[in-house]
Amino acid sequence: MKRKNFDAAASAYGSSSGEGVFDLGDFVLRSGATLPAAKLAFKTHGRLNADKSNAIVYPTSYAAHHSDIEWPIGPGMALDPEKYFIIVLDMLGNGLSSSPSNTAAPHDRANFPNVTILDNVIAQHRLVTQGFGISRVALAVGWSMGAQQAFQWAVSHPDMVERVAPFCGTARTTAHNLVFLEGIKAALTADAAWQEGWYQEQPTRGIRAFARVYAGWGLSQPFYRQELYRQLGFSSLDDFLVGFWERRFLRRDANNLLAMLWTWQHNDAGATPGCAASLERALGSIRAKALIMAGQTDLYFTPEDIEYEASLIPHADFRVIPSVWGHQAGNGLNPADTRFIDDALKGLLAA
Amino acid sequence: MKRKNFDAAASAYGSSSGEGVFDLGDFVLRSGATLPAAKLAFKTHGRLNADKSNAIVYPTSYAAHHSDIEWPIGPGMALDPEKYFIIVLDMLGNGLSSSPSNTAAPHDRANFPNVTILDNVIAQHRLVTQGFGISRVALAVGWSMGAQQAFQWAVSHPDMVERVAPFCGTARTTAHNLVFLEGIKAALTADAAWQEGWYQEQPTRGIRAFARVYAGWGLSQPFYRQELYRQLGFSSLDDFLVGFWERRFLRRDANNLLAMLWTWQHNDAGATPGCAASLERALGSIRAKALIMAGQTDLYFTPEDIEYEASLIPHADFRVIPSVWGHQAGNGLNPADTRFIDDALKGLLAA
Repeated sequence: MKRKNFDAAASAYGSSSGEGVFDLGDFVLRSGATLPAAKLAFKTHGRLNADKSNAIVYPTSYAAHHSDIEWPIGPGMALDPEKYFIIVLDMLGNGLSSSPSNTAAPHDRANFPNVTILDNVIAQHRLVTQGFGISRVALAVGWSMGAQQAFQWAVSHPDMVERVAPFCGTARTTAHNLVFLEGIKAALTADAAWQEGWYQEQPTRGIRAFARVYAGWGLSQPFYRQELYRQLGFSSLDDFLVGFWERRFLRRDANNLLAMLWTWQHNDAGATPGCAASLERALGSIRAKALIMAGQTDLYFTPEDIEYEASLIPHADFRVIPSVWGHQAGNGLNPADTRFIDDALKGLLAA
Repeated sequence: MKRKNFDAAASAYGSSSGEGVFDLGDFVLRSGATLPAAKLAFKTHGRLNADKSNAIVYPTSYAAHHSDIEWPIGPGMALDPEKYFIIVLDMLGNGLSSSPSNTAAPHDRANFPNVTILDNVIAQHRLVTQGFGISRVALAVGWSMGAQQAFQWAVSHPDMVERVAPFCGTARTTAHNLVFLEGIKAALTADAAWQEGWYQEQPTRGIRAFARVYAGWGLSQPFYRQELYRQLGFSSLDDFLVGFWERRFLRRDANNLLAMLWTWQHNDAGATPGCAASLERALGSIRAKALIMAGQTDLYFTPEDIEYEASLIPHADFRVIPSVWGHQAGNGLNPADTRFIDDALKGLLAA
């Protein structure tokens, strides 16, 4: 195993937080494609204890960097860096870990290989076990695509993961969710400036369209009816569409957005080796104590879909976040939702 | 009043159906803009009776032609041409009535003026009263944008409209619905071939993106989960996205799609003169016996929004179509939904 730029991670053992990049070497994906000189970016919070029993893995959500999802981490929170060693793991394709935007030719941009959720968890598992020497994970937790990775952790490593808490996400992407993603993909790629991925400048018109479509899905009908964007400091609906949604995606690379979108569309824990292509078998094999949460008004990870998956997990507690913030109920924007999630995670960690 | 190409309409008096185009002359919109040599297309079913008491007005929905919405019309159905004189009214912008695609320069294409739901109903009222000499309407009925126009008929002409049955539509466009429309608009206009409306060839990539985004909104999560597109003869999800959704919009002109979208986004019965910009006042003024239906799983005309509006109407019966077909529950695709709607309309017409 090669290591490169791992100093920050090493220092995390002794300090309260640290960023790092773990060198995966020439990383062979499950498809057989090789991602040369692959990198896994991460950030740690807290200190690994002497018996290495306090690790939490927390993968990023769609288009997020590790710095975007720190809201559930802090003293007094469930993810308390005074107690836990929290490893925030950057998903492949997010622009910090290996991605179309930062991979050398000829595997750059439109040539970046397709990556699955399982590929991500294989890479993350290497960091956790080989990089940190951790053999037990106290909790795998994540929101949205982070939830997909948390599910995969529990399925791939049933004897290693003690607790799992995916929220507002599913272990297999549903057909309707896939259609939502087809829509945002079509919106982005309708911009001829995208040039099938070989652009020199970002296809910003397409990214803005992508963001406007996302805006309708990312929250709920009552959120907009009640103008709750005002709670986020936006003075009008259009101000919110531009200042929140367009800003969120314009800071990202178009090929990276499409790479993570492919990962999302193809998410299926049932495809884990040994599960015979059965989601039921995959989720039935989980031995972690599971807390599965859904947002009450989530339009693409619906409570019905999530409850069904929770019913397949032997020791699962299913809870609905009572919120009109749609999918964003799990993104730390609304204090009541944050409290609900934090309380639930505290209960799980105390068990 | 000028008339042109009105022969078919005239013949409708004596035959069981007939298409026509009513000449509106230089039609001054409420905004003050003039639509020169404006046309209102329509089709009639059945015969106007001697006392002209059996007329039903039935305006088209988004992107539909009159021929697309004939499913509730037929012998034995509520809209029975043996009993009623049903006038299917083509919305301005739909490509048959005056539209960006068929208006002469300089008011063509991107220069086509913005048209409201109220403008549509003013034009339709002229046809009904001046063209056909009708002073009472037995029923104003419509789905989706057709519902918007039906509401407007009841608000604008409380003494003329005896019954009103808008289904799967609202009298004022909600904020979330507006955001959904922002998304499809952005997807279409992300295609540089659109050329701000001055294209020589249709921006088909943008229209396909528009259609893919629409696909997620137009049905429901359980519709896709249950693969109900197979009931429509589609063999796969992608087959459905292309064969149903892309086909539906590729046959339309991009500027026409955007013109009707503007009408939809700006729909507000509260803007009717005399209503003091109050939706409550507008709906409270309805004297027609009202049957208001919503699709149980409709994602953009939600049951909650529709129920709220129904509560503002003095004599309204509110019913939810128990269906997983989302907004399409009102489009005549699913036999059970068709029966539900038809039975409800029969009850209203018998009252």
